[in-house]
Amino acid sequence: MKNVKVIIWGMGAMGSGMAKMLMKKKGVDVVGAIDIGDKIGKPIFEVLGEEFPNNENIKISTAEDAITEKAADIVLLCTDSFTVKAFDKIKKIVKNKINVITSAEEMAFPMAQNPALAEQLDKLAKENGVSILGTGINPGLIMDVLVLVMTGACEDIKHITSRRVNSLSPFGKAVMEEQGIGISVEEFEQGKKDGTLAGHVGFPESMLMIAKALGVELDTVKQSMDAIVTDVDRVAPYGEAKAGAVAGVSMKASGIKDGKELIAMDHPQQIEPEQVGVQTGDYVIIDGNPQVNLVNSPEIEGGVGTIAMCVNMIPQTINARPGLVSMIDLPIPHAILGDFRDQIHEEAKIV
Amino acid sequence: MKNVKVIIWGMGAMGSGMAKMLMKKKGVDVVGAIDIGDKIGKPIFEVLGEEFPNNENIKISTAEDAITEKAADIVLLCTDSFTVKAFDKIKKIVKNKINVITSAEEMAFPMAQNPALAEQLDKLAKENGVSILGTGINPGLIMDVLVLVMTGACEDIKHITSRRVNSLSPFGKAVMEEQGIGISVEEFEQGKKDGTLAGHVGFPESMLMIAKALGVELDTVKQSMDAIVTDVDRVAPYGEAKAGAVAGVSMKASGIKDGKELIAMDHPQQIEPEQVGVQTGDYVIIDGNPQVNLVNSPEIEGGVGTIAMCVNMIPQTINARPGLVSMIDLPIPHAILGDFRDQIHEEAKIV
Repeated sequence: MKNVKVIIWGMGAMGSGMAKMLMKKKGVDVVGAIDIGDKIGKPIFEVLGEEFPNNENIKISTAEDAITEKAADIVLLCTDSFTVKAFDKIKKIVKNKINVITSAEEMAFPMAQNPALAEQLDKLAKENGVSILGTGINPGLIMDVLVLVMTGACEDIKHITSRRVNSLSPFGKAVMEEQGIGISVEEFEQGKKDGTLAGHVGFPESMLMIAKALGVELDTVKQSMDAIVTDVDRVAPYGEAKAGAVAGVSMKASGIKDGKELIAMDHPQQIEPEQVGVQTGDYVIIDGNPQVNLVNSPEIEGGVGTIAMCVNMIPQTINARPGLVSMIDLPIPHAILGDFRDQIHEEAKIV
Repeated sequence: MKNVKVIIWGMGAMGSGMAKMLMKKKGVDVVGAIDIGDKIGKPIFEVLGEEFPNNENIKISTAEDAITEKAADIVLLCTDSFTVKAFDKIKKIVKNKINVITSAEEMAFPMAQNPALAEQLDKLAKENGVSILGTGINPGLIMDVLVLVMTGACEDIKHITSRRVNSLSPFGKAVMEEQGIGISVEEFEQGKKDGTLAGHVGFPESMLMIAKALGVELDTVKQSMDAIVTDVDRVAPYGEAKAGAVAGVSMKASGIKDGKELIAMDHPQQIEPEQVGVQTGDYVIIDGNPQVNLVNSPEIEGGVGTIAMCVNMIPQTINARPGLVSMIDLPIPHAILGDFRDQIHEEAKIV
């Protein structure tokens, strides 16, 4: 079998990380990389800031040049968070008969907020014999798949709590701005009102993925977003918050079934949590038979986790029956230490 | 769609537990129950010691009477731990065009120790258009699937430790005898030598399941089994160990790759661990990028966990492409709180 061929669309932190990860793996080649503006025409090794022997130093190109019929087995699309924004790009890839994995959070379960677009994508993917998956660390693993896997050991469940307490300190300037690090409480409230502060994107997706798998219909999903105001000065590499300013965002969600909460999600993210005695971690607490009381501490860092999940799900996505799929439709995620080709079904290979 | 029809083969603790669990679920019926000896002919409610309204009070019967062509969508087979012992029973079920889930530990990955039998079963299942899965709490979840799911967030891995520290206290007399609770160290060593003490069955299966998914070939899997000798008297409901006697079994395994350990498994099981300050729990520790440091404490109890895993994997097994499958081939495990029929593909339904 020929090496698995991958095109990366979006050479930001996520896309670049996936390129670097893939270049260290066996049986898989990065055959294209797409970005906009100044990066076009640059050798990928220059953009990655590192050379990778036995890998081709391909040039960054436009989507028009890179996405042609069967140009690769799969495209990793890392340009957006929202389904509406990623939609045309996914369509272009699928029409060219190439599978897609996207890190767009809403695409982890687009049926949650954009059922009509999800249906269109499903139809188009089936017509073209390819699959579309949205994944990442969250949504994609910590607050949905890991929760569900633990419910596999349960006869019955009364209540589920999924908690992810993480640090924003490893992230760059863009994330600091998106999450409102260092702004005043008034600015935070304004940003919430006018939609410029998004907080975590993915609660409705994780909620409905869990509900779908468990086979329950939720009456409603409530979400809230509040400022984490610091009472001490906090300084992270790319952002800081003076005492009284916003050091992070506390996101909560509640999935209600028959008037009672079935699923609670709690996701406070802030810079320098250790400075105020907050221990980071990923938690799954199930009140059921049996009880589950799981913690992974410190939390799986979002950046490397998302990069790994998108790369590691390549075989499952290529092998999937055509259509729009989600993490609950595919075989369990896992790392790949061997040759990518050993994980691909012969009949699912495109090029 | 008609209700999913299930036959349970083996009405011991596991099979009875599965029957009780299924009788509380929607869209699924227990249509047959098989055992031997005195139980034959008895109403299932009598054997379960409990009545279940809206469920049929079927009678326990022989395999010959119950396993006829397409008599059910699936059989849950809970009679054995070893592939060679379960083999003829699985063949009988498959030849009658019925899917199988078995709690036989070696069947979680029979390619590990019985590749020829595994191949025969795979061929037979394909010929008859049905699937065979072995699962349970361990192997099936804690020391393989949970480990793999966490590696999904990893770019690279240097070493994996899977640890399950559990209590044998909830188990009955049979388990006390199998694990040598209360015997002397000399008796333990003799039992190890003549094969009457099995300890935990499943290390080679979990090891090779992990290795297969990661895409690595292990040079060798080493296993050891040692007595846990207590220095205080311990008393559990169905067994006891005086100071100096055997209170449990410490199982260890090491999966070697290129001369170095890649996977370590550590599974001490004993009665009353709390009495000597041992905290029970399930652990996944990955030295990789990122690090994983996961603990579920106390451990998922083996009985209810195995019961739930076997029942919860019914839809994935019925829906699977025909053949011998394992937990790494199927969609993620999860609880089912809704109607079982919602989880079954129309074309995969047998009766």
